[in-house]
Amino acid sequence: MLRVLAGERVDPPPVWIMRQAGRYLPEYRAVRSKAKDFMHFCYTPDLAVEVTLQPLRRFDLDAAIIFSDILVVPDGLGRKVWFVEGEGPRLEPLLDGPLPALGDPGKVVGALGPVYEAIARVRAELDPKITLIGFAGGPWTVATYMIQGEGGDKDRCRRFAYQRPADMHAILEVLVEAAAQHLAAQIQAGANCLQIFESWSEGLPEPLFEQAILKPTQALVTRLRALGVTAPIIGFPRGAGALIGRYARETGVTALGVDTQTPAHFARREAPAGMPLQGNLDPQLLICGGEALAQETRRVVEDFRGSPHIFNLGHGITPQTPPENVAALVTALKGG
Amino acid sequence: MLRVLAGERVDPPPVWIMRQAGRYLPEYRAVRSKAKDFMHFCYTPDLAVEVTLQPLRRFDLDAAIIFSDILVVPDGLGRKVWFVEGEGPRLEPLLDGPLPALGDPGKVVGALGPVYEAIARVRAELDPKITLIGFAGGPWTVATYMIQGEGGDKDRCRRFAYQRPADMHAILEVLVEAAAQHLAAQIQAGANCLQIFESWSEGLPEPLFEQAILKPTQALVTRLRALGVTAPIIGFPRGAGALIGRYARETGVTALGVDTQTPAHFARREAPAGMPLQGNLDPQLLICGGEALAQETRRVVEDFRGSPHIFNLGHGITPQTPPENVAALVTALKGG
Repeated sequence: MLRVLAGERVDPPPVWIMRQAGRYLPEYRAVRSKAKDFMHFCYTPDLAVEVTLQPLRRFDLDAAIIFSDILVVPDGLGRKVWFVEGEGPRLEPLLDGPLPALGDPGKVVGALGPVYEAIARVRAELDPKITLIGFAGGPWTVATYMIQGEGGDKDRCRRFAYQRPADMHAILEVLVEAAAQHLAAQIQAGANCLQIFESWSEGLPEPLFEQAILKPTQALVTRLRALGVTAPIIGFPRGAGALIGRYARETGVTALGVDTQTPAHFARREAPAGMPLQGNLDPQLLICGGEALAQETRRVVEDFRGSPHIFNLGHGITPQTPPENVAALVTALKGG
Repeated sequence: MLRVLAGERVDPPPVWIMRQAGRYLPEYRAVRSKAKDFMHFCYTPDLAVEVTLQPLRRFDLDAAIIFSDILVVPDGLGRKVWFVEGEGPRLEPLLDGPLPALGDPGKVVGALGPVYEAIARVRAELDPKITLIGFAGGPWTVATYMIQGEGGDKDRCRRFAYQRPADMHAILEVLVEAAAQHLAAQIQAGANCLQIFESWSEGLPEPLFEQAILKPTQALVTRLRALGVTAPIIGFPRGAGALIGRYARETGVTALGVDTQTPAHFARREAPAGMPLQGNLDPQLLICGGEALAQETRRVVEDFRGSPHIFNLGHGITPQTPPENVAALVTALKGG
């Protein structure tokens, strides 16, 4: 995988799966049930190490991704973060009233020690040939949770950005520095590369995309390099549509994560020449399995053949996926 | 507006607003409360005519769009359609068991008489300078409601398409013919142009986009022309991202509806030379109003200046929009 991230075309392509340490695995659910809540789960290295390694025991994957969450960053900033079972994350929203103090990005690394401990332990236990990925949410994506206090539709966040541009800027600035510190600490702990999940890139008019996604991501990558991080950075602006070209060209990321609906030929045309691409099988096909999965897997490999390619889904794997379909996918990819 | 649809650049651009006859208007809510349910509302010409004309009385708009719903087509096919107050539409889903008989597209026009009566009456009452728009849902979009039995996320529909391609094809074939009959009858009743709302174009891998959106839309446009319809057709593949180019080039539509996140320069580059474009102000700005709205309105006009342009939103207007912001928008556009 690191060879691909360095610009080399490798056949068959290396493979990992977004959210590979997740609820579709019975052994994950068994560990999950031991933690009293989701944040506690993320912050208990014994548990995080175990679930990070689980998919590697089952499948011939080329990378592990540390089990954690994009909301550890606001939590590390001192914003209260909790999860409502069966619903999702909750934070104190920033929609009403003046902007409170957002916390000190310089303290995030101190607060997130268990994440780095888990990374160091995974790296020590993992086969040296397996790449270990550290990650953070993109500044805009994390900001949408902080602003709304939850996930869901992003209309209120766009209104916040239009009506309170200075506050929006202040939030993004804190998140850029916090994410940079957090990502740099993950590399120091032993991660080999990084992914920025800009999961809510869709629906923004170009000027807002520029202010809320392009510039903060550019600042984040620049800051990481200034902090001495030389590891490759995969940017994944899910749903950015026509705007992935600007993301690929202007943010400084090493590689581009491509979502399901974006054709490989389009990503290749829009990205700088030779940029490694990652993607983009429809996760729904991993639920279906069978000939539909096999056929689309072959097509994805063919479509990305002109670029250095890391095989992945175009979105995270879903809880209802049968693990045997993942096994079939990986076996098919490795020519088994 | 018809001049723009014929390829002429008009300054200032003509304007209408998706869902302009809608809940943001108090006079709409007053009429809506008279109908026992939403389908009854659609099928009562007195009410449909009244709400179609309401926004034209308030605002200096260049087009009216007949008040109706994309689900009158499955209803006209004999599928049961009802609305749950505060939630949305319901149909008997097609997910489980063998595909039932889907109804006879030849009978749709007979079943939807009240829609055509409303169109004829609106056309008679409307200033001849105002364009009257007829519409239908795109075949894939309507199919997603029929398959799931409701709106919401489209994952199940993609799985249906992967696992039951023959059934998917059969549904789309019926919907193409039914939509063609319905759209042709709207033109015969007095509509001046047509819009195809492919509201759920996002998230499809390219081969499925081709099967479920491109080919059915191409068949629909071809069928409309065979039925003698010469009126312009606006195709609006909302969320198609990188794939709007293929939609614009391959379906035969006259004009392209552009969603909020797709820049005008991208649509222009991807569409056939000189194709009229419609869009694409963020509806959230109409809630905000003020300087943010004014500034983005100017930007949208500037960005589309190189193409024949119909000003519109990039998505439907929302119920919480203050009508005075719509007035301010239209006044600003008309140079008032």
